[in-house]
Order: sequence, then C-alpha cells, then structure tokens
Amino acid sequence: MRIFICGFGTVGQGFAEVLASRKKFLSERYGKDIIIIGAMDSRTFACDPAGLDPLSLVSRKKETGKVGGKEYSDPRDVLSECDYDVLVEVSPTDIKTGGAGLGNITCALERGKDVITVNKGPLALRYRELMDLAKKNGCLLRYEGSVGGAMPIINLCTEGLVGEKITSIRGIFNGTCNYILSKMDKGQPFDQALKEAQQLGYAETNPTNDIEGYDAACKVVILANSVFGRDVKFDDVRITGITSITDEAVAMAASRNMVIRLIGEVTESKLEVGPRLIPKGHPLSISGTLNTAQIITDLAGPVTVSGRGAGRTETASAILSDLIAIADRRLRTDGKSLHL
Amino acid sequence: MRIFICGFGTVGQGFAEVLASRKKFLSERYGKDIIIIGAMDSRTFACDPAGLDPLSLVSRKKETGKVGGKEYSDPRDVLSECDYDVLVEVSPTDIKTGGAGLGNITCALERGKDVITVNKGPLALRYRELMDLAKKNGCLLRYEGSVGGAMPIINLCTEGLVGEKITSIRGIFNGTCNYILSKMDKGQPFDQALKEAQQLGYAETNPTNDIEGYDAACKVVILANSVFGRDVKFDDVRITGITSITDEAVAMAASRNMVIRLIGEVTESKLEVGPRLIPKGHPLSISGTLNTAQIITDLAGPVTVSGRGAGRTETASAILSDLIAIADRRLRTDGKSLHL
Repeated sequence: MRIFICGFGTVGQGFAEVLASRKKFLSERYGKDIIIIGAMDSRTFACDPAGLDPLSLVSRKKETGKVGGKEYSDPRDVLSECDYDVLVEVSPTDIKTGGAGLGNITCALERGKDVITVNKGPLALRYRELMDLAKKNGCLLRYEGSVGGAMPIINLCTEGLVGEKITSIRGIFNGTCNYILSKMDKGQPFDQALKEAQQLGYAETNPTNDIEGYDAACKVVILANSVFGRDVKFDDVRITGITSITDEAVAMAASRNMVIRLIGEVTESKLEVGPRLIPKGHPLSISGTLNTAQIITDLAGPVTVSGRGAGRTETASAILSDLIAIADRRLRTDGKSLHL
Repeated sequence: MRIFICGFGTVGQGFAEVLASRKKFLSERYGKDIIIIGAMDSRTFACDPAGLDPLSLVSRKKETGKVGGKEYSDPRDVLSECDYDVLVEVSPTDIKTGGAGLGNITCALERGKDVITVNKGPLALRYRELMDLAKKNGCLLRYEGSVGGAMPIINLCTEGLVGEKITSIRGIFNGTCNYILSKMDKGQPFDQALKEAQQLGYAETNPTNDIEGYDAACKVVILANSVFGRDVKFDDVRITGITSITDEAVAMAASRNMVIRLIGEVTESKLEVGPRLIPKGHPLSISGTLNTAQIITDLAGPVTVSGRGAGRTETASAILSDLIAIADRRLRTDGKSLHL
C-alpha cells in the first residue's frame, strides 16, 4: 500500500514519524509493507515508486525547509504523475476557500484513490460533494482527525454507534478556549489567560479563529454533515465566542457549582457554538486543553469521549487509525478476521 | 443471519426488543433479515428455523415466566439441535464458576459459531482459553457490553486504537459505587447513600459485589486479558472496596478540590481496584451512575470514554454494536464499503 502525503508541516511530519514507528506493526498485520512513495509541501515534492524513508523526509524538511528536490507549479501534475493508493491530505486549513487541500482531495478521489484528511476547510465547505465523489468512484474518504484531533468521535459515531439513533452531540471542540476558561475558573482574568495560552503555544498570535468560536464551528459543521446526514455550511452555524465572558460571570457560575464552557451543539435542526453553563462533575465540565463530546443516542443513552484536540503526534495518531481502517478493508481479502 | 439468545432475563429481553426496533435498519444494511431462531432461559427454550417474533418472546416470558414451551435438561442438547450463526450469551453472571454461560459459549465456539456475550464470569475466569478456542475454529467472540455496559471501550481499544501502544487504563467501572461516592460528596453518609441506591434499583439487596469492588475487579481482569494480552484471573486483582471511606475523608478531599472515586487500574504489571483521590475537573471525577475509563496511549495521549454502565437497553445496545461488527464481516462479501 502506497501513501502520498500532501502537506508536510507539523502534522505531515508527525504522520511520517508515526508511520516509521509502526513499520513493524503494519508489516506483521498485513504481511506487506505500507510505504510512503511521495510527499509534497507548498512548493516542492519528492516521489519514488520504490518508497521514501519517512525520517529522511522529515530531516530534509527541517534542514532545508523543503520536503523534495523538485519544484512544481500545479499540484495536480504531481498527483497525476505519482502513483499511490492512499492520499494523506494535511495541508494548511483554509476555512474560506478550502485551500490547496480541496483541490488535492478532489484530484485523488477523481482518480479513484482513498483519502485521509484532517483538513477542516474542504470538509466544512464541500462535505456532501466530496462524499458523493468518493462513493461514485468506490473510494474511502476518512477524516477522524478533523474533529477533536485524537478524540475518537467520527468513526465511533459512524461505525461503533452506527446502529444507534444519535439525537444530539454537544462538546468542547476547541482546546484553547477550554484552557482559557479553566484558568478563569481559578480567578485569572481573560486577557491574562489568553496571553498565557499564547506563550504556551496553545493559541496563535492572532487568536480570532479560536476565541471567536470559528474553529469549533468548523467541527460542528463536519459532525452535522457526517453524523446527522445534514447538508450545512460554516455560515449556517450560530456562533458566539468567549471574548465577552466576564470574571463576574465565571464567579457567579462557580457559586452555583457550575462552570462556563464553550460548547458546540448539533442536532437534526440545531447548529450552534456558544458559552454554556455546565454543572461541575458533568462529563462536559472538564478542564484544560482537552476536547470532549457527549453523544446522545436512543439506546446507549449518553456516550462521552475526550482526548487531545491537537498536537503533532496526536493528530497523526488519528490518521493512523484511518489508515488501519482502510488497510483492513483493502488488504483483507481472505475474509478472515485480523482482530482475533 | 440467525441468532440464538441464551438467557432471557433483563438483558436478553432488552436485546430482543432492540433487534425488533432495528429490523428495518438491519435489513436495509445487509439486504437480508437478521432473525432470532431460538431463545433459552434457565429451564425452557423455543426454537424455530423460520424465525421467532422477538416481541412475542418477551411477552411470553413476562406472562408465563418462560421463554419457551419446551423444557430441557442439558443446554448442550438445545444448542446442538438448533442451528444458528451467532450465539448471544446473556445468562446470569457467576464469577466463581462461570455458570451456565461458560458451557454455552464453549459449546457454540466448538461448533464454529460466532458468540457475543456480556457475561463477565466466563470472560474473567477463562478469557485466554475461550479466545484460543474461537481462533482455532475461525469464530468471532465479542464482548463489548461486559465492561461498562454502553460505554464503548473494548472495541475502541482493540480496533480503533489498535495502532497505539496502550500503557494503562484507569476507570470507574461500577456505577453503584460512583453513585454512593457522588452522594457522599454532597454530605450524605455512606449508609444513607447506599440505602438510596438500593431504593432506586442501582444496588442489589446484597450489595457486596458492588461495594467491595468485586464487580469492578471482573472488568479489570477482562481489560487486562483483552487489551493488554495478559493472562490473569479474578484472584490476581488487588481489591479494596468503598466501605471504609468516611465522611471525613470525603470532606478532606473536597477541601483540596478533589473527590474520592473507586478506580480500577490496569497496566502491563498492575491490576488493582481501590479508592483514589481525583482532582475535580479531571475526566475521572464524574458524578452519578456513569462508568468512565481513561486509556493512556503512546501516540494519542489520554483518551477517555464514558457511558451508562448498566441497564436493559444500554447493555443491549452494546450487543447490537457487536452484532453489526460480526454482520459487517460475515455478510460483506463484495469487498465494498458499507460505511460510504
């Protein structure tokens, strides 16, 4: 099985490292190697049908700023020239246009290739179109890491809980906001908590996407489309960020044994991101940078998951889980269980 | 696909009802019906190769106390006479001998039949033996509901997180104890909280299995064997219950912003159940009857799940998820994805 990695920033490099660390596990599981045959960053690419060493790719990127020795002008040329089985699309997210990722995913699916992505832009903007294209061409399009990083939610909802009627999902989908709100629980003012989040690398220099709730809104859109079968876009989300939450509001919540959390909520008809009061001890009352989601089902009742919403290795681990699911499907031809 | 249900108490009836409620979903997913062809309680059985109506079985059991019109002396005779594809084994748990369930599961696996069970006894006592037997005969043995009811943990660890190195699992595996401890957080004395749990049906008249930690210990054993590949038994668990937790201890924890929870813990070398101090806001600090588990992995970091640990429909929902996984494997012969 041959992989092409589009985007070689933090997540792309993290995935190459994870793949190297799981080489033996994957060879034993499938009786054959899973190799990287190509990688591309914003300007350069490398391609070798015999396989590229993952760690050498990471070193070259670190040392030269380029993943490959060749430059390209149109990514479609590269993706047509190199032959691969699975495209791992982890180029930078652009939630306004879909960015390069949208073109890369489309190009791969048109050629009948399976795709794994964590790129929220294309999924938040063109989910239905991309899934239809995948279906038409008999491809798998998987995106576990696009919502909540290493928090297992997409595949849990669409596979493990597929027999359930899911009536709502409510969750904390932005670790930066949760970090800030947790610090405010302890008496820190908003500005100071934000500054600390920036110093620790949780928040970007321009924190708008996080604190205004835009990042959480993307995830809510992906859940609405994938789990609820809706056909919604970013602009359909009613969004309130956390910038107007005062110290007084947090203190008043505490006096009622509650905390304030930025909650994304999806149902058949609702699509919202905004601050909510959560009782202490409730699964959605967690502190720190974790993401969490409570899935309400008709048979199982409430099922809650939490995990790290971001991070190099954490996001790569979500890609690995999708890769294993694809390989289980594609490489398991004898009808025997791999899980025994 | 033909199902035989062994044990027709709360969970068996709940599963029959769930199957009836998902008739259309399952027929559409697989292009064929999944039917119950037999059911057995402690003395009687019913069997019809053409299929039995799930809700009629439940009605008959409720009205007459018997699931079937015929009595049997040896369950093996019944399980040999009726032809089925999947055995759903939900007879009463016996953590000392394995009870009837151990014989039923063994009998099915010997005949090459897939098995779904939530019966902790056979799994806590003979896990390795049963899995080896399943493997030898090319069968699937699944048991999602045996640990934490509707909390998705077994299949998450052995499938979704199969690419991870799991280093530890710590969790709340007994909802009764968690209910009592949550009430103690609010100032109720232990005896009163226990009495209330009994009145609400959370705790049995003889609450020993719950409050002494024995029930949680069974689940810890199942996790150790299935997720960590260990070969341990109930007697290997170091168990402390919650009976000696005083109001003073709970108050002192609260003064340090902590709660006391009964935590089961498994690593490569550890196997324990006992009260632990958990910081408020931590995923394991949840209140009420929920079960929860934090899985520590090398790539994804901590992944936490929670859900209802018991209940008629909740436990049946875990059986349904195992049934779908088996049907996906057995009935998907065209190589095409069912999840697109």
